[in-house]
Amino acid sequence: MLQRVDHVGIAVEDLEQALALFRDALGVERVEFDEVPEQGVRVAMLMLPGGGKVELVQPLAPDTPVGRFLARRGPGLHHIAFGVADVRAAMEAVAARGLELVDREPRRGAGGASVAFIHPRSAMGTLIELCQRDAGVASGA
Amino acid sequence: MLQRVDHVGIAVEDLEQALALFRDALGVERVEFDEVPEQGVRVAMLMLPGGGKVELVQPLAPDTPVGRFLARRGPGLHHIAFGVADVRAAMEAVAARGLELVDREPRRGAGGASVAFIHPRSAMGTLIELCQRDAGVASGA
Repeated sequence: MLQRVDHVGIAVEDLEQALALFRDALGVERVEFDEVPEQGVRVAMLMLPGGGKVELVQPLAPDTPVGRFLARRGPGLHHIAFGVADVRAAMEAVAARGLELVDREPRRGAGGASVAFIHPRSAMGTLIELCQRDAGVASGA
Repeated sequence: MLQRVDHVGIAVEDLEQALALFRDALGVERVEFDEVPEQGVRVAMLMLPGGGKVELVQPLAPDTPVGRFLARRGPGLHHIAFGVADVRAAMEAVAARGLELVDREPRRGAGGASVAFIHPRSAMGTLIELCQRDAGVASGA
């Protein structure tokens, strides 16, 4: 069901500082920006030339899921997103196997993807995103 | 410098239970096992068909880096590994840019890779692995 590692999300306090690390110190050049008000985040998506992406996520306010994550655990790895062909079918499949979904319906993710999250309670402390990118939308991966 | 997302490491208490989640509930079929006594871990590397890998890491004893991570934070996302062409060159480059390395010399990672870690203090709470896979060794990514 899971097709590939689409991206890895890192929660950061300061997007510009995080970008400086990845661009200047680690040499990642391709970056796309997005803001997803429904999720309360600003996002910088770093495209690795050989495949895979890193999503730097800065909360728009403290009282958001990522803001609360930062307050509780500090900056760091936040979620892993797997590419799936059909996010609704993937949601039904994982629910049928007893996993707990955060979302009842797919929501918009960064870059226009259609996404849903599996609760970390169901997945050994790991926040897993199911991520469908439509045909014709560059995934960079 | 960073070429691709090579894999994402998840610290787990019980490798078999974690495998059941990824194989039975999430449908990932290709798995390779390894044990890295130098790092005190057993590893199951899950190969995603469309690229990228998930490394499930179980400590061999509580008094190991991953054992202490589990005691402190519980199971969950542990590190992100980026593929590099030359791990020694990458270590020199990041050190020259002021980042703190955990390792002075490359060490053996799972699957025979040559790896070195950047300290989370230098990278916004994120443990970053630089990972060189030799030409001819299948990376699965």
